Amino acid sequence: MQRTVFIVSDHTGLTAESVARSLLAQFEGISFRYVTRPFTDSEEEVYDLLYEINATFEQEGVRPIVFSTLANPVLNDQLKTAPALHFDLFRTYLGELERELGRPPMGRVGRLHSISDRNYFARIEAVDFALSTDDGLGERYYQMADVILTGVSRAGKTPTCLFLGMQYGIRASNYPLVEADFERETLPEPIRPYHQKVFGLTIQPFRLHQIRTQRKPGSRYASLEQCEYEVRRAEQLFRRLSIRYFDTTSASVEEIAANIVQTAGLRRRID
Amino acid sequence: MQRTVFIVSDHTGLTAESVARSLLAQFEGISFRYVTRPFTDSEEEVYDLLYEINATFEQEGVRPIVFSTLANPVLNDQLKTAPALHFDLFRTYLGELERELGRPPMGRVGRLHSISDRNYFARIEAVDFALSTDDGLGERYYQMADVILTGVSRAGKTPTCLFLGMQYGIRASNYPLVEADFERETLPEPIRPYHQKVFGLTIQPFRLHQIRTQRKPGSRYASLEQCEYEVRRAEQLFRRLSIRYFDTTSASVEEIAANIVQTAGLRRRID
Repeated sequence: MQRTVFIVSDHTGLTAESVARSLLAQFEGISFRYVTRPFTDSEEEVYDLLYEINATFEQEGVRPIVFSTLANPVLNDQLKTAPALHFDLFRTYLGELERELGRPPMGRVGRLHSISDRNYFARIEAVDFALSTDDGLGERYYQMADVILTGVSRAGKTPTCLFLGMQYGIRASNYPLVEADFERETLPEPIRPYHQKVFGLTIQPFRLHQIRTQRKPGSRYASLEQCEYEVRRAEQLFRRLSIRYFDTTSASVEEIAANIVQTAGLRRRID
Repeated sequence: MQRTVFIVSDHTGLTAESVARSLLAQFEGISFRYVTRPFTDSEEEVYDLLYEINATFEQEGVRPIVFSTLANPVLNDQLKTAPALHFDLFRTYLGELERELGRPPMGRVGRLHSISDRNYFARIEAVDFALSTDDGLGERYYQMADVILTGVSRAGKTPTCLFLGMQYGIRASNYPLVEADFERETLPEPIRPYHQKVFGLTIQPFRLHQIRTQRKPGSRYASLEQCEYEVRRAEQLFRRLSIRYFDTTSASVEEIAANIVQTAGLRRRID
């Protein structure tokens, strides 16, 4: 069974899509086809969309589901005429908030994303920071880091650092743990002075073996034995040095990042 | 006037926070203080939170606002006892969806983010792809790119490529336009064969001047004259070669990315 879901937004539509996907993921046995229409801000676009929703309804014999965030009431009324189950994310809560806060909403489009200089620079700087201190680079910047991730190759350090920068404005560096590091009983020298802000990432050896095999099939680097060895030693090191660590095996980048922010008590640098 | 807003989630809380911020941004003249509680999944945590909400209420004399997504009904009922204006993002739409889809929701936590291998690899690969073809690197991979961004230095290419990878699983490369490129009337040689997938980014010269000044104060590179020259020539090139382009001056990374996806008709590679 398939249902078509339209995501209609006068902005990027990312929030609406995220809400729709989390809600619909609760219903098993239905395959949802998503059609996204970001930056919908004219009557012509809504008109075209109405045509598409109608056509979908006729073809599938069941009404599509629409999730929308349109600030403009004219466009919204127009959209409401579609033969669809319509969830208006924008207006559902706005009335109650208006009563609570004692003032009317402004009805401005995409207000959330209007760029303040502070946010813009903090975010771009944090992404730049992650890039210039990726995989052991840029040691001289470590003292400016909010957090330094460490762990074996392919445990998820780089995407997590980038996500921390992009989403939270947090300055995250990462330093790889390699075989030579396991012979010492301390952190690698460059990150040793920053013990307090070091955070470990680990992963289940079999999963690591799969990931490394995608990258370098048949190599010693990708072998299950090597993965088992490195992970065991890395975790020993974390425990011995009381470094907090997180298992990324079945976690998304968002989950890993949110977990680090929470566990390490980091502060968001952007709104 | 200040109001405290609690974001309570059994998962990352990013969607709930995004919804809360877009809604509350509609109300001017109120300063909202956000307190986020991701990964709230035990009665103890909700109990601590209730204490905190109560304390905030007593201190501020006005009830806090709570946005929550808790799948567990026991925890949710517990949270509802708080002296707060409570928006339950999870349950608001679920009843209507249940009637429409003819089956009950599963009530599973964070179902959205359960990792399918396909998504995991597509995403990590796309981020790796952006990193290894950043700023003119990795020419040999250009034929695998979904899109190649080009534009002057600091127009926003790198963060946009990373975001396209992270959020959409799209493989995005970027190639910088430098002075020497403006003397020719064609695209730089490495990206010339891929004209069809080249997308331009531009920016207002004064804004570029501000951004470059943060990076290299007082340099020729950062001078307003230089920025004006580069931007003018880059835009001329885009127009002459009929390359679609987007002005990033007052756009967030999300907006730039969503715009490219829409304009270039790119397809999301992850759910």
